[in-house]
Amino acid sequence: MRITALAGGIGAARFLRGLLAELAARGAGADIGAGHEITVIGNTGDDITLFGLRVCPDLDTVMYTLGGGIHEEQGWGRDGETFAVKAELAAYGVEPQWFGLGDRDFATHIVRSQMLDLGYPLSQVTQALCARWQPGVRLIPMSNDPVETHVVVDDEQGRRAVHFQEWWVRMHAATPALSIVAIGAEDAKPAPGVLEAMAEADIVLFPPSNPVVSIGTILAVPGIRDAVAATMAPVVGVSPIIGGAPVRGMADACLSAIGVETSAAAVAEMYAGLLDGWLVDLSDAADAAMTRAADAAATGPVVRALPLLMSDLAATRAIAAAALDLADELRTDR
Amino acid sequence: MRITALAGGIGAARFLRGLLAELAARGAGADIGAGHEITVIGNTGDDITLFGLRVCPDLDTVMYTLGGGIHEEQGWGRDGETFAVKAELAAYGVEPQWFGLGDRDFATHIVRSQMLDLGYPLSQVTQALCARWQPGVRLIPMSNDPVETHVVVDDEQGRRAVHFQEWWVRMHAATPALSIVAIGAEDAKPAPGVLEAMAEADIVLFPPSNPVVSIGTILAVPGIRDAVAATMAPVVGVSPIIGGAPVRGMADACLSAIGVETSAAAVAEMYAGLLDGWLVDLSDAADAAMTRAADAAATGPVVRALPLLMSDLAATRAIAAAALDLADELRTDR
Repeated sequence: MRITALAGGIGAARFLRGLLAELAARGAGADIGAGHEITVIGNTGDDITLFGLRVCPDLDTVMYTLGGGIHEEQGWGRDGETFAVKAELAAYGVEPQWFGLGDRDFATHIVRSQMLDLGYPLSQVTQALCARWQPGVRLIPMSNDPVETHVVVDDEQGRRAVHFQEWWVRMHAATPALSIVAIGAEDAKPAPGVLEAMAEADIVLFPPSNPVVSIGTILAVPGIRDAVAATMAPVVGVSPIIGGAPVRGMADACLSAIGVETSAAAVAEMYAGLLDGWLVDLSDAADAAMTRAADAAATGPVVRALPLLMSDLAATRAIAAAALDLADELRTDR
Repeated sequence: MRITALAGGIGAARFLRGLLAELAARGAGADIGAGHEITVIGNTGDDITLFGLRVCPDLDTVMYTLGGGIHEEQGWGRDGETFAVKAELAAYGVEPQWFGLGDRDFATHIVRSQMLDLGYPLSQVTQALCARWQPGVRLIPMSNDPVETHVVVDDEQGRRAVHFQEWWVRMHAATPALSIVAIGAEDAKPAPGVLEAMAEADIVLFPPSNPVVSIGTILAVPGIRDAVAATMAPVVGVSPIIGGAPVRGMADACLSAIGVETSAAAVAEMYAGLLDGWLVDLSDAADAAMTRAADAAATGPVVRALPLLMSDLAATRAIAAAALDLADELRTDR
């Protein structure tokens, strides 16, 4: 069984951890179980160069989470982290000081930057880093070409574009985004293996990631959206919106920027033509059903409602199980 | 009063700290005291690129020691140091693992590397780092051009050249050096200010640094030896050899490589034509006197014997005071 998932950061990482646990529990006897091969296509639009080092927040969140090195409460960064380097950089007066890189995390960025400087593409660098973490999935960046999401804001400093991380981390997405642009995306090529993983998948999953700056950015790399649309595999998504609001993060601020309302139905609409199945929270079931009823041609995805809060591993496993079951059902239907 | 000193690492840094304390104690009223301007020309032959970061051990040892950030017992590296980054790099299997960079130290190398990558010359980078440490001296690298000392060895792995740091730190200089080569030195230019600091000095000092791989490397940069020979200032050196042995470090292994015996007299001979005054330890006084007596033309430096062990700041101040006094005497003689 080949499963291909698109992934942002925390939401995707937690969902994938539940998916791996569910697959392990199903074991070799089940239809979907042992012998599975999971490919995760990671968003790199959040990547940023800090202090001359290349930082890939989403790839690292997936790698650390699945590899057992994540800061559990925080959801990103390393467990048992210390901040000696950050304190020293501040003592030198080096900017930016709003990005919280810990000492353990710094080592990852040092290794990555050294390999990139030597000419290795990001996909090979990521593979090398994963050789240590053994995340249990094949993690591929969406592209080896640099793509950086920038946000156009207009505040007391005037109208300007800031790096997504600055808007998200320093400004807490509190300043309205006038527009969000994935710089470099239109010239980026999918990393080796990305299109193949989509074409050869038995199941394609959209974890509950930010539909604008995570999944949206991956789909903005020319060729990837077409590959999702063309795959023979059922495509099942998990709504990142619960009860009309993002669970964590500030996805609503991103959706507002592109004129989309913060609802499970509206996010599904963003994925029109791609999704075969769509998992929504019980609190959004009525809304989703209404949307589907309004779809005259009934071309939208099959919607299932269940509790979508990934409160612990058991709850997350149940969501992953529902996604697998829906995909299996949709596959059988074909 | 303008004082210019050449400097390696630990020995020079401690001597310079004693010099600053002595000058501060003499105050404004003395011939040599307040209003002094000290320029330190640092060896960069020990510099090495590790994990893609540029490390300048000698410059940093001087900067940390005079700036109050040194690991006091160790003599190099930062006080209160932690090693999270190093442990992580080892977990990634990244080499080399024999070089002990701490987290605080890493920050210095990250800042330096970022500035070098942006195109700033090492002299400006060093100035920027010193803006934080306020070492009380103007610290200039001997050259902005890369010079890296390599050591030719012949062991079970065959005859080959290894970076000085590998020979010094990993091999503990236990494998005999067949030769020592400062790669890049012959094409290096003195950094801005180096030749001026020598020409305009009132006193030139050679602290007790390794005569081969520290002072010797600085003097190997074309123009610097000539500038020392040509300066009108008295040049006073402090022997790094006490009782026929290096106080710390493995200078004897370096001296053997170039066929020079490990003695205060032999080191003075290496500096022939440069030194006007030479401070030796009491234990080496007879040897030094004999050497001077044998010098038919009596062209060698004026030799003074005193305790040269820099056991604490008071002892170090006394050595610096003797160097200043001898320089003053030699200046008056002219």
